[in-house]
Amino acid sequence: MSDFETDVSANSEGGFDPRRISLVRQALGQGDAGQLTTLLDPLHAADIADIIEQLSSFDRRKLIDVWYGEIDGDILSEIDESIREEVIGYLPRHILTDAVRELDTDDVVDILEDLEEPQQAIILGALTDADRAAVEQALAFPDYSAGRLMQREVVVAPLHWTVGETIDFLRNADHLPDQFYHVILVDPRMKPQGYVSLGRLLAAARATQLRALAEDSYRTVRGATPEADVAYLFTQYHLISCPVVDADDRLVGVITIDDAMNVLDEEHEEDMLLLAGVGEESSISDGVFETVRQRFPWLFVNLLAANLSALVIAQFQSTIAVFLALAALLPIVASMGGNAGTQSLTVAVRALATRDLTATNAMRVVRREAAVGLINGMGFALMMALVGWYFYDSLALGGVIAVAMVVNLLIAALAGVLVPLIFVRFGMDPAVSSGTFVTTLTDLFGFFTFLGLASLVLM
Amino acid sequence: MSDFETDVSANSEGGFDPRRISLVRQALGQGDAGQLTTLLDPLHAADIADIIEQLSSFDRRKLIDVWYGEIDGDILSEIDESIREEVIGYLPRHILTDAVRELDTDDVVDILEDLEEPQQAIILGALTDADRAAVEQALAFPDYSAGRLMQREVVVAPLHWTVGETIDFLRNADHLPDQFYHVILVDPRMKPQGYVSLGRLLAAARATQLRALAEDSYRTVRGATPEADVAYLFTQYHLISCPVVDADDRLVGVITIDDAMNVLDEEHEEDMLLLAGVGEESSISDGVFETVRQRFPWLFVNLLAANLSALVIAQFQSTIAVFLALAALLPIVASMGGNAGTQSLTVAVRALATRDLTATNAMRVVRREAAVGLINGMGFALMMALVGWYFYDSLALGGVIAVAMVVNLLIAALAGVLVPLIFVRFGMDPAVSSGTFVTTLTDLFGFFTFLGLASLVLM
Repeated sequence: MSDFETDVSANSEGGFDPRRISLVRQALGQGDAGQLTTLLDPLHAADIADIIEQLSSFDRRKLIDVWYGEIDGDILSEIDESIREEVIGYLPRHILTDAVRELDTDDVVDILEDLEEPQQAIILGALTDADRAAVEQALAFPDYSAGRLMQREVVVAPLHWTVGETIDFLRNADHLPDQFYHVILVDPRMKPQGYVSLGRLLAAARATQLRALAEDSYRTVRGATPEADVAYLFTQYHLISCPVVDADDRLVGVITIDDAMNVLDEEHEEDMLLLAGVGEESSISDGVFETVRQRFPWLFVNLLAANLSALVIAQFQSTIAVFLALAALLPIVASMGGNAGTQSLTVAVRALATRDLTATNAMRVVRREAAVGLINGMGFALMMALVGWYFYDSLALGGVIAVAMVVNLLIAALAGVLVPLIFVRFGMDPAVSSGTFVTTLTDLFGFFTFLGLASLVLM
Repeated sequence: MSDFETDVSANSEGGFDPRRISLVRQALGQGDAGQLTTLLDPLHAADIADIIEQLSSFDRRKLIDVWYGEIDGDILSEIDESIREEVIGYLPRHILTDAVRELDTDDVVDILEDLEEPQQAIILGALTDADRAAVEQALAFPDYSAGRLMQREVVVAPLHWTVGETIDFLRNADHLPDQFYHVILVDPRMKPQGYVSLGRLLAAARATQLRALAEDSYRTVRGATPEADVAYLFTQYHLISCPVVDADDRLVGVITIDDAMNVLDEEHEEDMLLLAGVGEESSISDGVFETVRQRFPWLFVNLLAANLSALVIAQFQSTIAVFLALAALLPIVASMGGNAGTQSLTVAVRALATRDLTATNAMRVVRREAAVGLINGMGFALMMALVGWYFYDSLALGGVIAVAMVVNLLIAALAGVLVPLIFVRFGMDPAVSSGTFVTTLTDLFGFFTFLGLASLVLM
């Protein structure tokens, strides 16, 4: 039984026990390497990596000083990129090279991508010639492409083989990939022609032809295909693995669903962070200055936009001087427009990412947004008219803010869906800075409508 | 070769050709069922479902009238929940029952969850007794739990079997699940003890003991475990499948990675939509009134909050009357605070979802946010001081807005991380309405600091 992890209940909750981190800190305080091993050794590499991430920079340094001998390739792979460079910098050279040699080449590529030149050279130098060639070939594919994502070890069988021949081949193979879910069928020029799931292979009689078992959901991608498209294929067609081919349709590797799931996760994160105006690669473990560097530029653009709005308001100073209540109502206009715009924008960006919003239904979605903006606008117009009338004692003011609210929410709804659509039309990421665009538009139009109307009606 | 889809290039792009929708519309206009079949039949069910989603409600109805005979369980499973009920409503009863009978019970559960009582009854009535019992057992688990997600068909082998015995058993099995990646090892009481990947099974000699091949990454979950925790386990430990056990640790089903990937996708969508103040289940194919119903309440809360801010401003009317430039600068205060708060909030919500932000590092993250807020605040304070001095011709005004900017960005950064942490502390979803909370806080404090200082310094 020693081969199995039988402690089901401990596994059921997911994640590690936060109390373990306190114990790790204690052991670090005492410089007790034995105690560290007792605490960390039973854990999955992903959990050890999480603990390393959550320690302060000071404790992290100390942990590596005391425990570096135990840090292997798996742990290194699992550590978040934001602190991986730091950890690699602390590791003695021989530990680093041992760790890297253990890894599959796709994991080495994943680590290398985020490192600076000198560290890259150390790692490349640690690899065998064959592995280094494989890694360099992968790096020749564009960033964020299928070629970067794939593993180069593939399990293939000629089209004409039977189940029995395939099983005999697998039993005699020197080395098979850790993870494989299909046997890829290839023609004599290594062009993939389909694949057979291992489940079907196991269930079939030895004499069965492989081609009779091939799966319907078979797809291939080219090495240069963007990884976002790869992730889309996996979700859309429920793929488990997907062969990668070169420009001549020859098999060069395979992507498995766990890699696609990672990409999906990163794409989501990127959309979410970009929409919020945060650098796409920001992480909770970034330092203060790294965080300032990521956030400052977005806030700066926002400051310029806000000053533009302030200019609009300044044009109406004489009106505001007479009706001071207008000043108090300005933030309501800005806030409602901004929020309604963000609602439409988020739904649109999400639908673009899942490809549920396309050229086909764009006009219908724009019409729907306009209708929603109008209806919501009229509802809030009524409320604000009452507020204006009752609290600010002016029916005219109530009327002005009511009309402004309708116009504002209509523009917000339209801007929310049109801005990302226009971005996509020009080949840009719909999430990048579209938030600032939308709120700037709603602010400018909102203030202009509200104060312009006020000047006309009240003065 | 007819068994394989060999048109690699057509597959490489991902997704269907939008031109095909125009052709579908044409065929619908002519009521040409044969042409529809020519267009749709070669497609994957997921692509057919996308086309059905992207048609207008009118065209959708027409498509089902003409083409209902071809709509099967796979297509029904793939259709977005927001319009599935509509489609099911149009389908003749016998088509619906045929479609449902084809499906695995976990897909039936997935469809049933979103339907109203009468439609549920029709579908349950269509099932065989055994399937109905399975579906009803799954529905007995809480919403969004592992028990709802799992498939009940499992491939198991006794702990003491050899590879040869297992392969013989699989070859003779009447019916195996469509998707399985592991053989689960069980003891005589059906308690799972580990699992063997099909790859290892295939590569091993017939005499090898299964237990010698069991995988390290093995985990189980209980049926009542929330699906979000299940998705976390899959990403954290790179699982491909995960056995589900009951309260007595007996095997009741298995969850595969494609289901976990769906959950991950939905969780992300939920966080993103909730942060934007949109109902968590909104979709691009929702109708106008459904969309209004989702968005109105959030905007209403926002309106109340904005009126609160207006009240704060109204307290300073006499100051604004003297320095009208203050009115123009108010939106800058609101906009910078709101944006900086959203930045911190989004990073915090995301880190909570990925469990990178925990009790262990919360204090360090709060300190980091405070430092970032202070540094950014001082940067923008300098700029706004210059703006105040140069454009509004008042060094005092520049000083006031500078100090307000520092306080504002500090509060925004702190609120952005503290609000979701406090929500979690009280067992609430950190994404729900935390955006409104944060911007309300930054508006109130921002206006109060800015106008309060202005009253003190300028008057």
